[in-house]
Amino acid sequence: MPELRKDPIIGRWVIISVERAKRPDDFAKENGGPPEGECPFCEGREGNTPPEIYAIRKFGTKKNSSGWDVRVVPSKAPFLRIEGDLGRRGKGVYDVMNGIGAHEIVIETPQHISNLADLNEEQIAKVLTCFVERTKDLEKDSRFKYVLVFKNYGWSAGGGRFKHSRTQLIATPVTPKRVKEELIGARHYYDIHERCIFCDLIKQEIEEQSRMVLDIDGFITIVPFASRFPFEMWILPKKHSCDFYNLSFENNLDLARIIKKTLLKLKKGLNDPPFNLILHTAPFKRKKTGYWKTIQEDYHWHIEIMPRLTRVAGFEWGTGFYICPIPPENAAKYLKEIEV
Amino acid sequence: MPELRKDPIIGRWVIISVERAKRPDDFAKENGGPPEGECPFCEGREGNTPPEIYAIRKFGTKKNSSGWDVRVVPSKAPFLRIEGDLGRRGKGVYDVMNGIGAHEIVIETPQHISNLADLNEEQIAKVLTCFVERTKDLEKDSRFKYVLVFKNYGWSAGGGRFKHSRTQLIATPVTPKRVKEELIGARHYYDIHERCIFCDLIKQEIEEQSRMVLDIDGFITIVPFASRFPFEMWILPKKHSCDFYNLSFENNLDLARIIKKTLLKLKKGLNDPPFNLILHTAPFKRKKTGYWKTIQEDYHWHIEIMPRLTRVAGFEWGTGFYICPIPPENAAKYLKEIEV
Repeated sequence: MPELRKDPIIGRWVIISVERAKRPDDFAKENGGPPEGECPFCEGREGNTPPEIYAIRKFGTKKNSSGWDVRVVPSKAPFLRIEGDLGRRGKGVYDVMNGIGAHEIVIETPQHISNLADLNEEQIAKVLTCFVERTKDLEKDSRFKYVLVFKNYGWSAGGGRFKHSRTQLIATPVTPKRVKEELIGARHYYDIHERCIFCDLIKQEIEEQSRMVLDIDGFITIVPFASRFPFEMWILPKKHSCDFYNLSFENNLDLARIIKKTLLKLKKGLNDPPFNLILHTAPFKRKKTGYWKTIQEDYHWHIEIMPRLTRVAGFEWGTGFYICPIPPENAAKYLKEIEV
Repeated sequence: MPELRKDPIIGRWVIISVERAKRPDDFAKENGGPPEGECPFCEGREGNTPPEIYAIRKFGTKKNSSGWDVRVVPSKAPFLRIEGDLGRRGKGVYDVMNGIGAHEIVIETPQHISNLADLNEEQIAKVLTCFVERTKDLEKDSRFKYVLVFKNYGWSAGGGRFKHSRTQLIATPVTPKRVKEELIGARHYYDIHERCIFCDLIKQEIEEQSRMVLDIDGFITIVPFASRFPFEMWILPKKHSCDFYNLSFENNLDLARIIKKTLLKLKKGLNDPPFNLILHTAPFKRKKTGYWKTIQEDYHWHIEIMPRLTRVAGFEWGTGFYICPIPPENAAKYLKEIEV
């Protein structure tokens, strides 16, 4: 019997289609993409990107030259522009504003390595440090409400022509809809229970174990109960925290470790599939308003990883109704058993 | 300057990325899919599908034999099962219910034609009649709240191995999230303005003309102001109506005409791209509750058509934040000029 499961945070129903269940090796393979050419993100080609905004560099090396570990540059084809004001306005029944924002690229390694999973833990920790530092800087700009940190790995996940491992940061003047829904859902739960819904969910996952993939130091990796995609995974800090950007240096290393292991499981277990990785954390401006006081208690940052193994059945776009062709418990069992 | 536009109904922001604007012939082509084999949906192969639930047939022909115009059969691999009760239950913090529902296939022509655009208007009107008749029948089942009517055309839009033109009907025991958001958004607008938001939007589109593609009889085709996808189109009845299933026979033919012309524009103008088509109408159970009285005034049925021309940049899944690489006004101008 298929099951309908509800995402407890935003209330989205998902069909867990056990009848159509596939084995992990039934899933589609990556499409490839165009030929790569000379990569502008490799060490020694710093002149081929816009000038760097931030970098973690070896002592004594110069900006926009070799000798860096992680490097942040503006996007060459930004979705949003940094200069100008928001100009919020109405057009009859419609709302519109200028496309103000920042669009930055975190180049995660000086070598031409494509998968974050293949970097060492210290290197991944440096990448996380860049997320923190850049976001703290962008937060100073009063026009921005949110920074989206996301990775498109592989051509069919929206990755670019060059396979060099990198993550995108987009600062937006609005809170993205899905983030807002999570905030509202978490708030609603807190209003009733006076507990964080993510903390309750973590507790239940640790007790049940059936969707648990990894439990290391202060973090867990689970396959979510109402998975939208086969082998979807979430990484959550076990201790309550609304704000990714308060990561301590120690936690940073622990998080790097679980990210590496989670992505290695994906790579080894599912033949290096394309995936998207997205960081969900509390929005900006929170400290300046009364909102901050409650959001500290009701929201819980986490990372969502969505492998792109199936064609997207189109109606999911238009309905918000997802069909997952493998039960999350089976996906978790499979991933748990992959040695990394 | 790129623009941020807000969908006035559900409040989703979209980046209209003019800087990255592409010409219509820059968009990706269909991927193909596996070889087809002998099609089970063609006339004369009725034994290869499950027995029919409903059909429009030539007078005197027998069930499950030749002589039909449109034929409805259960899906061979249903997402949901028709037998059983809902069994709604909690699992700690989670909600779950049995995967009860109906999953039917409307075979739109006895010939092996793949694109609905290539059927004649009378045939398309018969297809619409099947949507109405099947939905009215499914509505009698008190377990169901909604019928999703959607078409996946082309392999990369989630279409099946056999290219024979067909539409899927899924009856669900829950209202899909996106439909619910629309209902809530429309209600909210009505509470303030005492007018239907769709009616206001239609009025504005007719006045502005810049996003209008077709205006025939009682229907219009527009490119929506906050398009998520390049060349997205909506078909709306100009006269207020919440319920697709109240279509009169005359309107049925008019709707068939505008659907045909809209899809022909897509086919001719964009090299027969894959697309999804989804019908949005008011949910069931509405007549039985006080809700029906207001929904009649605040909701407005429509059809959404989403061509699949771009790889889906992954973070859109996780954030509900879309980037459309062509301004809706340019898309509308291009589509308007395609002769059909």
